[in-house]
Amino acid sequence: MSDDKKLPTRAENFSDWYNELVLRSELADYSPVRGCMVIRPHGYGVWERMQRALDDMFKATGHVNAYFPLFIPESFLSKEAEHVEGFAPECAVVTHGGGKLLEERLVVRPTSETIIYSMFAKWVQSYRDLPLLYNQWANVVRWEMRTRLFLRTMEFLWQEGHTAHVTHDEAEHETRKMLGVYRTFMEAYMAMPVITGLKTDSEKFAGALRTYSCEAMMQDNKALQAGTSHNLGQNFAKAFDLKFQTEQGTEAFAWNTSWGVSTRMVGGLVMTHGDDAGLRLTPKLTPIQVVIVPIYKTDDERAATIEAAKRISDELGSFTRPDHERIRVHVDERVGIKPGAKYYHWELRGIPLRLEIGPRDLAAASGMLVRRDTREKRPIAWDALRAELPIVLQQIQDDMLAAARARMEAHTIRERISYDRFKEIMAGDGAFVYAGWNGDPAVEARVKEETKATIRCIPDAEFRSQVAPTTCMVTGEPAKFEVLWARSY
Amino acid sequence: MSDDKKLPTRAENFSDWYNELVLRSELADYSPVRGCMVIRPHGYGVWERMQRALDDMFKATGHVNAYFPLFIPESFLSKEAEHVEGFAPECAVVTHGGGKLLEERLVVRPTSETIIYSMFAKWVQSYRDLPLLYNQWANVVRWEMRTRLFLRTMEFLWQEGHTAHVTHDEAEHETRKMLGVYRTFMEAYMAMPVITGLKTDSEKFAGALRTYSCEAMMQDNKALQAGTSHNLGQNFAKAFDLKFQTEQGTEAFAWNTSWGVSTRMVGGLVMTHGDDAGLRLTPKLTPIQVVIVPIYKTDDERAATIEAAKRISDELGSFTRPDHERIRVHVDERVGIKPGAKYYHWELRGIPLRLEIGPRDLAAASGMLVRRDTREKRPIAWDALRAELPIVLQQIQDDMLAAARARMEAHTIRERISYDRFKEIMAGDGAFVYAGWNGDPAVEARVKEETKATIRCIPDAEFRSQVAPTTCMVTGEPAKFEVLWARSY
Repeated sequence: MSDDKKLPTRAENFSDWYNELVLRSELADYSPVRGCMVIRPHGYGVWERMQRALDDMFKATGHVNAYFPLFIPESFLSKEAEHVEGFAPECAVVTHGGGKLLEERLVVRPTSETIIYSMFAKWVQSYRDLPLLYNQWANVVRWEMRTRLFLRTMEFLWQEGHTAHVTHDEAEHETRKMLGVYRTFMEAYMAMPVITGLKTDSEKFAGALRTYSCEAMMQDNKALQAGTSHNLGQNFAKAFDLKFQTEQGTEAFAWNTSWGVSTRMVGGLVMTHGDDAGLRLTPKLTPIQVVIVPIYKTDDERAATIEAAKRISDELGSFTRPDHERIRVHVDERVGIKPGAKYYHWELRGIPLRLEIGPRDLAAASGMLVRRDTREKRPIAWDALRAELPIVLQQIQDDMLAAARARMEAHTIRERISYDRFKEIMAGDGAFVYAGWNGDPAVEARVKEETKATIRCIPDAEFRSQVAPTTCMVTGEPAKFEVLWARSY
Repeated sequence: MSDDKKLPTRAENFSDWYNELVLRSELADYSPVRGCMVIRPHGYGVWERMQRALDDMFKATGHVNAYFPLFIPESFLSKEAEHVEGFAPECAVVTHGGGKLLEERLVVRPTSETIIYSMFAKWVQSYRDLPLLYNQWANVVRWEMRTRLFLRTMEFLWQEGHTAHVTHDEAEHETRKMLGVYRTFMEAYMAMPVITGLKTDSEKFAGALRTYSCEAMMQDNKALQAGTSHNLGQNFAKAFDLKFQTEQGTEAFAWNTSWGVSTRMVGGLVMTHGDDAGLRLTPKLTPIQVVIVPIYKTDDERAATIEAAKRISDELGSFTRPDHERIRVHVDERVGIKPGAKYYHWELRGIPLRLEIGPRDLAAASGMLVRRDTREKRPIAWDALRAELPIVLQQIQDDMLAAARARMEAHTIRERISYDRFKEIMAGDGAFVYAGWNGDPAVEARVKEETKATIRCIPDAEFRSQVAPTTCMVTGEPAKFEVLWARSY
């Protein structure tokens, strides 16, 4: 795809902007299989860094990785009644294998509760075998009618945590802990602030007791559910006979949790930070942190600037200096492409810093450093790079989070508004609206029908208003909960 | 599964020994889906370390990771004639999705040449876009009738490299380079010596010009094909119209390579090094390098030995000393289990080193260090651990490779033997037999029929005999090649 064509702006059409940007920045591409995408190296590089950071956090909280089969016997899915109702319509089904019709159809996993808890049941005998704290990195398939790159694809990559505990409270603690891990990751790595809270019954995971989620605001003021953590209660333990002998010698069913985040987060990163010139990747997740663009007219100048660029790149990227963080640097040596076109190329791809080195910079041993997020420019001496770049990168990371947080706050409505006003807002620019709700699912359904907005969550205490709403925004009846309304992906 | 039951010995029944060991060491387990296995945390921990090491080597040789869809339209598979003939009988087929019969059936990828080269065709216009050096970590499915944990399972995890080049020679160079990467990995990390060489036409990959492989000898003297690297020529480029404009302005088809290794390597590690007491994992791949077993009678002794063990573990496992390699240490704090049972537990799981710390060791600030591979014991002072453990671990790594190499050499026959003698050997203990071959596939087929042995490869020069065989072992006709015969997995 050519870099020349101009990207649609966010204001013109946010959805077109997103689709075009994902394609043109080479994060992903459409595939010959309807609804499945190809994750290209630039997008996969972001995902790899997400994986590494999360995996380290999972291990630091005592979890181990394992791998369970892609295929699930169709009968397994049916063992938990709500679960099968939720997932069966979305399943891809294998009916033939090795040239023969199968006796039992196999479902391509849409999620792995059933197969994993059937194995846990085999491994767990006593309370001494608990807790089991497992995680799996895997692909899953959910048959979707309307797909969008990263946000909703038939196949996606994710991690799914699955744990088993002796008590309800321990499972609840785990559910909340992992939600906290997700929030930390999203804020510290993605620079994407989130609201955490409890899902209403109509939005919870099929088979869960309680579902918690992280909700982030995209630049079109719609919410993206970026991660979920479920307290599954004993529903799956009962379905799969996951029992253990208690310390008192009695028998009890285990308590389970599951929690997951997926490649959808890459879409969240794009829609949180991208601008009309392209992606803006965070320093912690970008495959390349600094791109060096040599500027030259003659062959001699080319040789000299590239030689300097490579020397700097080797020094910054070296593993041999344990006293400094290693920086991911790329030198753009492509021939026959003007510096301006190179700037455009790397801006589109969201690289946080550009260092320009021209012939006159050689004698001064300096270059021009340009930030992608603010477009701020300043000269910098080569021998200051080692010390200053980590500081600048952290500054960019912090500034991006602050900017995203300010944007979310600016489009959050906390004052009590009428349902008519709410309808206007949802029909217009949209917003995160905090409001009272009487707890009636029929009200939830009506609002969704009338405005396309849904209750994203019953926010955790720290996000709730200082003065709780007393009445339901829709019915005027007494409010049972303060909830967060928004249109969503 | 209880640790108490005795493992079958290798001499009694190598196959039973392998199956039982994989289960009882908790590397893997059978799953409810026929032919699919569950990789348990201990096995997945080994696989993760294999992945990390290989991934680093792929990146150091200029490759990038990407991800392509799990599903392949059935029509794609048919575009390369030999490829479909080889893979179609092994395919799992999705016929239903979202509750509906699909218009085109989808094959669950058995390998990804077809889908990847169809995308390459979309991305490549000019010679400037080449080479493309891609790798994918993924699950694949091949419908197998007789499965064995790790060695042959319906679904397995692997990496598949896929590259596109301007010339045949460049593709051939890449094919050989990645075979070399595999060999380096297998010898340096798995301590598993391999013979590299060219596959005969009857054994090459369906759709390839040439297939090279790494062949390792297991303890039953059978060969394990542990990795393959294919020069695909222009076969797939022609099938998927993967063309580019050359520097001269003409149009040409690209040259492709593909190469892969899988979770099968975990089985190779077990069968190369395991003994009658259990696994022997290499220091580079084991999840735990040193297990500390505290020995005590009283509660006070328990507290004191565990406290010492944890202090040592923290110090050795710390990231804060950049001047020393971090060591993976586990303290076995389980209560109600005798030291002897703990030794047995960790020997079964193949942990390279055990450090015993008893009450009398506390005053002396020392412990007893026991090697899993040689069972050698020696006292060691705590303050010597930091400096000595990396040396001991490297020594174990080197000794394991040397032992495996010596065993392979001891069961390799290089002198010229008669076909009758060959038949006796293959009916008995088996061996790697180097012999002349007239190049006739009919001879290959006859030997396989009569002895179950196959030509593992036409070995690379460094493995061939100093004096090349002049006659075919089977027919007595002039030999075209020296080949390596063995029974195999």
